[in-house]
Amino acid sequence: MARTPVWTAIAATLQGEIAAGQYGPGDKLPTEAELATRFGVNRHTVRRALADMAERGILRTRRGAGVFVEAPPADYPLGRRVRFHQNIRATGREPAKQVLRVETRAADAAEAKALALAAGDPVVVYEGLSSIGEAPVALFTSTFPAARLPRLAHALRKGGSVTEALAASGVPDYVRRETRITAESASATQALHLRLRDGVPVLKTVAVNTLLDGTPLEYGVTFFAGERIALTVSHDTPQESLD
Amino acid sequence: MARTPVWTAIAATLQGEIAAGQYGPGDKLPTEAELATRFGVNRHTVRRALADMAERGILRTRRGAGVFVEAPPADYPLGRRVRFHQNIRATGREPAKQVLRVETRAADAAEAKALALAAGDPVVVYEGLSSIGEAPVALFTSTFPAARLPRLAHALRKGGSVTEALAASGVPDYVRRETRITAESASATQALHLRLRDGVPVLKTVAVNTLLDGTPLEYGVTFFAGERIALTVSHDTPQESLD
Repeated sequence: MARTPVWTAIAATLQGEIAAGQYGPGDKLPTEAELATRFGVNRHTVRRALADMAERGILRTRRGAGVFVEAPPADYPLGRRVRFHQNIRATGREPAKQVLRVETRAADAAEAKALALAAGDPVVVYEGLSSIGEAPVALFTSTFPAARLPRLAHALRKGGSVTEALAASGVPDYVRRETRITAESASATQALHLRLRDGVPVLKTVAVNTLLDGTPLEYGVTFFAGERIALTVSHDTPQESLD
Repeated sequence: MARTPVWTAIAATLQGEIAAGQYGPGDKLPTEAELATRFGVNRHTVRRALADMAERGILRTRRGAGVFVEAPPADYPLGRRVRFHQNIRATGREPAKQVLRVETRAADAAEAKALALAAGDPVVVYEGLSSIGEAPVALFTSTFPAARLPRLAHALRKGGSVTEALAASGVPDYVRRETRITAESASATQALHLRLRDGVPVLKTVAVNTLLDGTPLEYGVTFFAGERIALTVSHDTPQESLD
């Protein structure tokens, strides 16, 4: 078993106190000097613990003002209608999307199968980063059948929401049939985009969205920052999320 | 950025080939000698990569026979009716449950809130380990209101399913309202029970099951082996899973 450095024990203690509500979102933590006295360690060790918690999005350092508790994981409702912008706005926060790549290329085997295309048929691939306020929360790759949606690539390049780009491409509505959720360790690229440490847990969702008649429209693979987002599933019937 | 040892690149390559279907579940991999030649490394390095994949449940070593590809993550349907035994049997595999602890004690704040009790009211706490065949897949803690279910602790100690124990306690049916899903790194205890390496990703679900009239019945926190289980959510209405 590997030895546990003392700063990790300090971070775990503070994280426990935050989880127990002793410090709430927005609260200021004691100073480094106070924490060093409390734990009987030097300030360098306290700083290491605080830096680690800041990196994981639990704390935020405001220069000259101190260290503050960040907001707890944001709920992200998974439902028949999954709309990132609307879902986040409904919780009183501001969503943002950054376009990383939009391209048209031949479908690979998994994409072709999910979209009921022949392998090699053209697909529009949209890679992007979703944020809430300043914090990146989801790195996604969405794949669409290019032949059915000739204007989509252009509409996606403008940024904005997928729902808006689909509407501009003649698709007024779409729904999700199923979501498959697994946990993985963040790759170096995912960690970089989501501002996580290498190897921390991410939630992976794989889903197919369809037209109301069942025609496959979008094959989406998304990696969520596991400590910043909680996926929520309502099992009430009829299962419709806010839209 | 940390350096990447060559064995991790070999493991990633083989894992990619398995994911791409080049080797299917049950297939035998080439020998260590063949892999050493292919990657231009010594057998010790190949062995390190294979041991890591075996530890993560991707491969299995059969003494004297070689190294074989394990089955992919098992689908675990989350729905209004979540029944571990029925859900797993429906996929043609044999479920098992190991009772780790059944006790009656005072509810903590989170349990009391979820079950609409006063803090300190008695609850039955059931900790256990769910397996599919030989592989442990879920470590769970379920909390029930003790006053409403005087015969439950006794029924749970027999093993078997929660559904059976509840039926024996006079609860013929119950449903799930919502599930909250996050990703965490496995703690040492979780890793031990689930036979994972320390720190690998686990899926955490938190859910409340209720009687059909909405009375809270069970507050459940479960940790799933992230690489062995895929949680699936059907968004079709009416959302009923097989039961």
